[in-house]
Amino acid sequence: MTGETLAFSKGHGTENDFILLFDEPGVIDLSPALICALCDRRAGIGADGVLRAVRAGAIPEGAEFPPDSWFMDYRNADGSTAEMCGNGARVFAAFLEMEAGEDFAGGVRIATRAGVRLVSALGGGRYSVGMGRWTIPGEGKSDATVSIPGLGDRPAVTVNTGNPHTVVAVDDVADLEAADLNRAPTVSPIPPEGTNVEVITLEVSGVGRRGSLRMRVYERGVGETRSCGTGACAAVIAARAWEGSGAPMEWDVRVPGGLLTVRIDGDETILEGPGVLVADGIIDLASLTHA
Amino acid sequence: MTGETLAFSKGHGTENDFILLFDEPGVIDLSPALICALCDRRAGIGADGVLRAVRAGAIPEGAEFPPDSWFMDYRNADGSTAEMCGNGARVFAAFLEMEAGEDFAGGVRIATRAGVRLVSALGGGRYSVGMGRWTIPGEGKSDATVSIPGLGDRPAVTVNTGNPHTVVAVDDVADLEAADLNRAPTVSPIPPEGTNVEVITLEVSGVGRRGSLRMRVYERGVGETRSCGTGACAAVIAARAWEGSGAPMEWDVRVPGGLLTVRIDGDETILEGPGVLVADGIIDLASLTHA
Repeated sequence: MTGETLAFSKGHGTENDFILLFDEPGVIDLSPALICALCDRRAGIGADGVLRAVRAGAIPEGAEFPPDSWFMDYRNADGSTAEMCGNGARVFAAFLEMEAGEDFAGGVRIATRAGVRLVSALGGGRYSVGMGRWTIPGEGKSDATVSIPGLGDRPAVTVNTGNPHTVVAVDDVADLEAADLNRAPTVSPIPPEGTNVEVITLEVSGVGRRGSLRMRVYERGVGETRSCGTGACAAVIAARAWEGSGAPMEWDVRVPGGLLTVRIDGDETILEGPGVLVADGIIDLASLTHA
Repeated sequence: MTGETLAFSKGHGTENDFILLFDEPGVIDLSPALICALCDRRAGIGADGVLRAVRAGAIPEGAEFPPDSWFMDYRNADGSTAEMCGNGARVFAAFLEMEAGEDFAGGVRIATRAGVRLVSALGGGRYSVGMGRWTIPGEGKSDATVSIPGLGDRPAVTVNTGNPHTVVAVDDVADLEAADLNRAPTVSPIPPEGTNVEVITLEVSGVGRRGSLRMRVYERGVGETRSCGTGACAAVIAARAWEGSGAPMEWDVRVPGGLLTVRIDGDETILEGPGVLVADGIIDLASLTHA
């Protein structure tokens, strides 16, 4: 490598994976073309998205936040900007601990395009993320129908956690596995902006207990993924609405990529899970030019 | 990263991608579990396979080669051993130039599980690889039928380039794109060990010219891939047999992952193409343990 290079880390949160760039002064020209080339899983490094750590005061988008706060500049693999990502925020915290010596034990307020989010280290490589407000327009009553090959038509519940979700409950793990999520489920009525679909099955519930459910998710515009933080929150909100008063406030959510925990705290949710840094290194930017 | 680490590079040849490990003394315990964890595209680094550079004299499998020659220890992403990979050999050469200061300009004999292969640098990041002997049992006559959704039943030709291939020619790019390779094509008769299927369309041929064809490939046990070195060689051997005497000895083969060149040299083929190193870095092995 004799030409221009870029230092990076790679990490994941329940197998939602990211390329992390440390850019305190906000000098990296993070073009959509560069993001696509970095996230290309064969010609680049490969990831679901890029997380750039930049001081809020160093970029125009950070103007509304304290200038010395960290801004999580999150981009999708296709180069588009994204507001927030609960799985990404945990990896972002692990990255700032390593790169900037930040101490998340007492909680750090991270600036994002969705506003400030409180991220805290829980020990053992786990982090909690304040996910903001949720709403459940139908108050837990079925207000949509989802058609999924392998399952047929099912009643579903709309939940909004900053982005739109439609949650379907099935009877058991066999039904959960029978859902064919290779194609987008058909949702009726479909919100104008589209929706993410969570298929869940409850494992443990009941008064005074810790809830437990399994979930698979189809993310709009992406397909089935290994994990979705806002989807896990939506699943728990729907489950709790179905179970009624006395239902658990804290739930384990088992997704294909691992184990998340969601706590309901009034009109907000808190997402807990691992943030893992796998590797760090140097990218040869000239090697990406053909991509 | 305070625990055990592993230095790596990531590279690709026409988007067939690899994790490269430099292990001159042969001390890395490259277990199938470690390979799977490294090649996991979300929880690890991600690659089609691992290429370990080790001196032949350092490992039992290298006993038949000069002890100071480099052995290309190639493993598939599922942890199984593999004999040879033309796309991998080019990236392997680029890696040895960087890590060991080897000069491939005059050609270097690399030891592989398929025997010794001559790999040469051509300049501009391109390399040639001696791919060994080929046979065409039916001498270019159709000796198989391949059924592909979108194309129907087509006559095909069997070619062996160390591994088995079945080559189908279609009329034009529209037909090439119409082939549905999401599922394995049905080949009849099917060889006991299975076969790879190449769908090709000729673009330029004729006496005294440089040939040109486009190719898509379905690799047995894998699915459609961006490139296949032995498949490109098989495609050219079949094309030349169809075109008859006077047909080009040198062909450009355009695959989804880029451009390869295949030269026929008697009963052997020589594959040319890029070998690209994208990044290098350090993996935190403890971060992989859950994978």
